[in-house]
Amino acid sequence: MKTDSKCPTNIWHPCTQMKDLEAHPLLEIERGEGVYLIDKNGKRYIDAVSSWWVNLFGHCNPKLTNALKKQADRLEHVIFAGATHQPAEEVAEGLLALTPPELNKIFFADNGSSAVESAMKMSYGYRRNTGNARKNRYAFLTDGYHGETLGCLSVCGETMYADLYGDIMIDNIKVLGPDCFRCPCGKKRGACSADCFGFMEKALRENSEILTAVLIEPLIQCAGGFKMFPPEYLVKLRSLTTELDIHLIFDEIAVGFGRTGTMFALEQAGVCPDMLCLSKGITSGYLPLSAVLTTDEIFYGFYDDYSAGKAFLHSHSYTGNPLACSVAAETLRIFREENVIETNKPKFAHMRKCIEDVFSGHPNVGEIRHTGFVTAVELVRDRNGNVPFDSGLRTGFQIYRKAVEKGALLRNLGDIIYFMPPYVISRDETETLVSIARESVREVLG
Amino acid sequence: MKTDSKCPTNIWHPCTQMKDLEAHPLLEIERGEGVYLIDKNGKRYIDAVSSWWVNLFGHCNPKLTNALKKQADRLEHVIFAGATHQPAEEVAEGLLALTPPELNKIFFADNGSSAVESAMKMSYGYRRNTGNARKNRYAFLTDGYHGETLGCLSVCGETMYADLYGDIMIDNIKVLGPDCFRCPCGKKRGACSADCFGFMEKALRENSEILTAVLIEPLIQCAGGFKMFPPEYLVKLRSLTTELDIHLIFDEIAVGFGRTGTMFALEQAGVCPDMLCLSKGITSGYLPLSAVLTTDEIFYGFYDDYSAGKAFLHSHSYTGNPLACSVAAETLRIFREENVIETNKPKFAHMRKCIEDVFSGHPNVGEIRHTGFVTAVELVRDRNGNVPFDSGLRTGFQIYRKAVEKGALLRNLGDIIYFMPPYVISRDETETLVSIARESVREVLG
Ligand SMILES: Cc1ncc(COP(=O)(O)O)c(C=O)c1O
Ligand SMILES: Cc1ncc(COP(=O)(O)O)c(C=O)c1O
Repeated sequence: MKTDSKCPTNIWHPCTQMKDLEAHPLLEIERGEGVYLIDKNGKRYIDAVSSWWVNLFGHCNPKLTNALKKQADRLEHVIFAGATHQPAEEVAEGLLALTPPELNKIFFADNGSSAVESAMKMSYGYRRNTGNARKNRYAFLTDGYHGETLGCLSVCGETMYADLYGDIMIDNIKVLGPDCFRCPCGKKRGACSADCFGFMEKALRENSEILTAVLIEPLIQCAGGFKMFPPEYLVKLRSLTTELDIHLIFDEIAVGFGRTGTMFALEQAGVCPDMLCLSKGITSGYLPLSAVLTTDEIFYGFYDDYSAGKAFLHSHSYTGNPLACSVAAETLRIFREENVIETNKPKFAHMRKCIEDVFSGHPNVGEIRHTGFVTAVELVRDRNGNVPFDSGLRTGFQIYRKAVEKGALLRNLGDIIYFMPPYVISRDETETLVSIARESVREVLG
Repeated sequence: MKTDSKCPTNIWHPCTQMKDLEAHPLLEIERGEGVYLIDKNGKRYIDAVSSWWVNLFGHCNPKLTNALKKQADRLEHVIFAGATHQPAEEVAEGLLALTPPELNKIFFADNGSSAVESAMKMSYGYRRNTGNARKNRYAFLTDGYHGETLGCLSVCGETMYADLYGDIMIDNIKVLGPDCFRCPCGKKRGACSADCFGFMEKALRENSEILTAVLIEPLIQCAGGFKMFPPEYLVKLRSLTTELDIHLIFDEIAVGFGRTGTMFALEQAGVCPDMLCLSKGITSGYLPLSAVLTTDEIFYGFYDDYSAGKAFLHSHSYTGNPLACSVAAETLRIFREENVIETNKPKFAHMRKCIEDVFSGHPNVGEIRHTGFVTAVELVRDRNGNVPFDSGLRTGFQIYRKAVEKGALLRNLGDIIYFMPPYVISRDETETLVSIARESVREVLG
């Protein structure tokens, strides 16, 4: 192999300062089994982050693996223009049945970013086709994250990812979003009426003539720091976007498929977006696949004689890949047959309790927040005023490295330690994970 | 299922005017076997376009399917930040060994578009990190195609895909590219020294201060009309981009993995780009996966202490997916063990001959062009002056529909009929395919 004297690998890993690998070697994972990842020496790690929030039912789940193998013996792939197949039909039918009746059409893509890009193009394409091309900008929230291709990045509120690339993207409209831990309106979590929606209202009213859509991660802004906010914000947002003729795009790529405690986060607000983006858990963490669900109104904005030139042109070579769809169809079957949404409830309640027991009262814990099967523990230097640690200390990263030594892949997000395990985690495994977290925090912070 | 009285399906297919389905129903494909796709009634179709140029070794190829199944029993997926696994290492090693020595690092993504977006961000990110942020624009060719996410679309020279979205993308620099069939310099194919490079030279010299990179599909611009041009263009382009400090990005997503007759098209020009984008055939058409290969120079532009904030941040949830990588590793093994590049040569020579025998001399055939395992037949209304058909007639589309009836998925690209079958096609199958093409053309054009 071509060699390199400095960097220990020729593979450039995502979201990584590669120089870190000089001191912190990569795990060499060989097998997966339930909540465990197993390295080449047989060491086992609890996958506390579901491998970037994708895994639902454990690694190498027999049902999912069998579905994949069966499909591999029939049809691995077929062009999805001019052709269809049973696995895609099954996923479409299943997803449309689980979502509000207004969402009546489904468009497939390969990854989360491509779904968001498709939704953005659908929204503006609809404006073009209906004679309203002035509406060509998007509103998005501070700390919102929708992927890192350049369209997605132009609506990314997480400055670490987006700011560097400002010169190669269009300008969209960034709006101060909800932050219940450090509320911009001086309110306390759980005791407000989403007063911070005022910032959104102002931005949308001022820009309604140029806004085609607003993008939001409902209930939890994940990559932006596991910020959790009340459904009321979404109710207000739906009402105002309808009034102003702005499309509402829900990005449930991270929160969909039961993560927030309901199948989709939108259920907790009782509202329906114009477009719903799904990915990650759609295949239980097996394969890249994504989808945009939308309304007949949007769909028929593109439906015309061929010569009218109104078709929605967006394609990926592997759109509707049968292998990925077969695993997605099995995922939906597991949700139905195992009544996952209900059986998850006592599990995440137990996880919460374990985490509260260990971390509430800790002098460096600013907040513990929960939504469904996600619990985030935000560490601070000083609880008085919730003063963050100096980021140069890399406190969260140190805790992550300790946890790896102890057998948990408890990857930090800045100084936030979060728990987002596969749903199949047992009570014992939850307790082991939380005690690894406790010990790791103790070794780093005392 | 939610119903819709107008449109026969709730799935929104890619690259399709959905109203066309009222008259032209979708194929319902159930199985794949070698070069054949088989519908639910058992009817067989030769996959003449390798399901959008992805399939290399036939549908449900036993070797590839076994590799996939073996991997599914070990590890379906793991987060690729902080961890690695054998299938990714094997693909990395294999691809770096097959490409020029300067390409020493590999970055994974999920689909072709995401690879191109990554390469674009790498190029500009390198400028930022090395104090040259004025270089923030890209040059691209008329009829070039690099995918349809918004970054890719901003370097798309195919107006049908890009023009509608002009208002939601940045402006890049479009350059008149080579067109050997209707040469802008009045030359004949095969009898020039890439004189048309003059347009590129002018554009690059005039804009070198703001140009970070130029993107090109080497040897064949596929989606833009199967335009084939001589390697000399690439030699000139490499030399000038080096002189002007502009990165050269080769998009071999469609042409890589043997399509042009060599493993990669760049071999025919004997040049090395700064970034090489690969996808499609990388998994022999099984699963979405892509990669950007690049140089140590680019890589070390991002390599520094964490606190310097120079890391390349671009990630997808399924980056480096082990299932996709296992099929990619098996693909590379097949290339080695079956000496594919050599064994393909007589096969595509035979295909060429069959097509020449049938179509050369036909009054509506403007040109038959070949590169490796790709042959394109461009139909014209009048060979005198190569006058195209009125596009409203949809001549190519009609031929495609006829071919489907006769058992070949010979999907048109405008009025171009092209042959890009899986490499495993037999002599008999080639002859059947070409005779279906002949009959379909005859029925439509007389
Ligand atoms: C040359 C080229 N680049 C990029 C792409 C985009 O790849 P994908 O469709 O996987 O996003 C394609 C796909 O057709 C292509 O042909
Ligand atoms: C909310 C959200 N949107 C979009 C994406 C992008 O998805 P992908 O990484 O599959 O491109 C992510 C991935 O982390 C996400 O969390």
